[in-house]
Amino acid sequence: VPVITLTTDFGAGDWFVGAMKGVILEINPRTTIVDISHGITAGEIRAGAFALASSFRFFPKGTVHVAVVDPGVGSRRRGIVVETARYSFVGPDNGVLSWALAQERIKGIHALENEAFFRRPVSQTFHGRDIFGPVAAHLSLGLAPGKLGPRTKKLVRLPWPQTRVSKGRIDGEILHIDGFGNAITNLDVKALAGNRWDVFLGRRRICRVERFYQAVAPGRPVAVPGSTGFLEIAVNGGNAARKLGLRIGVRVSLRTRH
Amino acid sequence: VPVITLTTDFGAGDWFVGAMKGVILEINPRTTIVDISHGITAGEIRAGAFALASSFRFFPKGTVHVAVVDPGVGSRRRGIVVETARYSFVGPDNGVLSWALAQERIKGIHALENEAFFRRPVSQTFHGRDIFGPVAAHLSLGLAPGKLGPRTKKLVRLPWPQTRVSKGRIDGEILHIDGFGNAITNLDVKALAGNRWDVFLGRRRICRVERFYQAVAPGRPVAVPGSTGFLEIAVNGGNAARKLGLRIGVRVSLRTRH
Amino acid sequence: VPVITLTTDFGAGDWFVGAMKGVILEINPRTTIVDISHGITAGEIRAGAFALASSFRFFPKGTVHVAVVDPGVGSRRRGIVVETARYSFVGPDNGVLSWALAQERIKGIHALENEAFFRRPVSQTFHGRDIFGPVAAHLSLGLAPGKLGPRTKKLVRLPWPQTRVSKGRIDGEILHIDGFGNAITNLDVKALAGNRWDVFLGRRRICRVERFYQAVAPGRPVAVPGSTGFLEIAVNGGNAARKLGLRIGVRVSLRTRH
Repeated sequence: VPVITLTTDFGAGDWFVGAMKGVILEINPRTTIVDISHGITAGEIRAGAFALASSFRFFPKGTVHVAVVDPGVGSRRRGIVVETARYSFVGPDNGVLSWALAQERIKGIHALENEAFFRRPVSQTFHGRDIFGPVAAHLSLGLAPGKLGPRTKKLVRLPWPQTRVSKGRIDGEILHIDGFGNAITNLDVKALAGNRWDVFLGRRRICRVERFYQAVAPGRPVAVPGSTGFLEIAVNGGNAARKLGLRIGVRVSLRTRH
Repeated sequence: VPVITLTTDFGAGDWFVGAMKGVILEINPRTTIVDISHGITAGEIRAGAFALASSFRFFPKGTVHVAVVDPGVGSRRRGIVVETARYSFVGPDNGVLSWALAQERIKGIHALENEAFFRRPVSQTFHGRDIFGPVAAHLSLGLAPGKLGPRTKKLVRLPWPQTRVSKGRIDGEILHIDGFGNAITNLDVKALAGNRWDVFLGRRRICRVERFYQAVAPGRPVAVPGSTGFLEIAVNGGNAARKLGLRIGVRVSLRTRH
Repeated sequence: VPVITLTTDFGAGDWFVGAMKGVILEINPRTTIVDISHGITAGEIRAGAFALASSFRFFPKGTVHVAVVDPGVGSRRRGIVVETARYSFVGPDNGVLSWALAQERIKGIHALENEAFFRRPVSQTFHGRDIFGPVAAHLSLGLAPGKLGPRTKKLVRLPWPQTRVSKGRIDGEILHIDGFGNAITNLDVKALAGNRWDVFLGRRRICRVERFYQAVAPGRPVAVPGSTGFLEIAVNGGNAARKLGLRIGVRVSLRTRH
């Protein structure tokens, strides 16, 4: 029985996630629904895209991944289902799926147009409950994506923040602050092997790249290879974002150490 | 296998929800437990009643809905199970079930008195774990509600905030602020059809009723038919509660536009 | 099919819990995963230990309890699995399991060393996903703990805050503030039977011990036997921590009343 995952900005205080799960279970009572996160900042498509891209590949083959960070709900933005070698992805075509899809080989994209697989009447404000949830439930039952709507080539792709590599230096930026206050950058740890690096915020050297948090004294900053494959700036036993004033978008430079 | 839903004010920081699920799974290991919300404001019976009333009907027939917002726990307030055509409802008889039940045809109400179906000893502070959870688990196994205690006619019903309709005008109020900052009113969207409406807070006109958020420019207020069937006041891409200073109980007037 | 429980400080805003569940479900698609809490304060081992100790015993026999509050992740602290008469416990050997284990008869402890049961490569920052989750999934499939690594006698045990009993007086402290603002002490309610007690913070008498919240008027403080077996300081219908300025570690005295 396929797993269905949910990544949304619906939060914990309301019934939105529950209603969406009810609709799914009415269609497929045997599916396992897993919450990736409902704590995405409201309307922050990039944050939802990053959460999905950081977690989707740990799920079993056949999993249906649903992401709903959807500030355009009710407007003319499309809903889509994307099939890859291992998974199905369902959500609004606003880029929220695109960072995960950049890691996958896409087999086909279909627009969600066949209302027979929607919950009706479709509201103008809650397509998670009325479109994406029901569609995911039908896919988990084996529905062919082609039944959901016409094949399409178009896909909204969020630009990935590129790093810049020069002699002895790599420039990147902070992509995400996690709940521990660790700052996840776009610096791929595979690009760092074979050198020792200092980490700079602007001209200020803040720490070295080490292998784990405890390589520095408690309360001291350190950069380590993170679990998503990107360099993270942390404080051993503390909150780096608070201590160092880090925020999404802040520029980070690495320079080789001699 | 029936679904059991949980709606509580237990929050995310403690083990209360987990303990309740453990007790349920010990009695019925095969049930599917779905969280509607555990983020109801502590002790706010109306908020719990509204969350349940907004979501219960999306679950499969046979679902057992448990709601525990229970500031009177340990006192003489009763526990009840209510059977309707499609569902069972379990919780304290303090009104938390009543807004959902107002939408259903009630087949029977029983007081929860038979301690054989409770976890013992019963604490004075956590009936979710000791009474409502176990009772729901037994119901999900097919237990007849009559085994749980005597039939009763009484039910505590929360008053529903009424709207007032006069010529070219409807007066209502804000029932809920959701996690996006949208203000859900008690104004039934079915009553609005056929007219165009302006929305007032006191004497201040704040927006029009439109069909979806993007009918106005980003950052501008708008009222739209919400997914629960009530009019919502929103800000396109923003937080209406913060921007407009909205709170539960604030009065909202609609006037026809010419 | 055994239940797997999760108690972590991963929070609700990130994908960490989701990724861990994906890894578990890939190994054992049929297990039921229950969240005890992911809202443990970051790095607060005692808070995680208390949450697990307060909830583990409500789960069915055979449950695999995983606790990951792990500020030492990536350093040389060990991972362990502990078998008791009814359960398996998996996590870092930093004390987070120890308050639960103090209530159980331990049958065996094994260090987690066999990488065949890990997800590889093992990150230095996320052993929940790469070690503890996979190990728990294999245990839920029936793996003998001896396959995971060598038997050991050592176990890091957090000291339990002791109470001090003298004539007509018991001194203790606050262990936890729950989401309602109730302060859970280390005062065992079984030690209080047969006497009537006044509750003091330092020299200030704040309330009596009663049987339930409503024994005092709304807004008034009261101490009641809590659902974990410890005395709780509450405010009827209010938030005791805020109203009385309570925090973890604050000393509480009981004196008999005449």
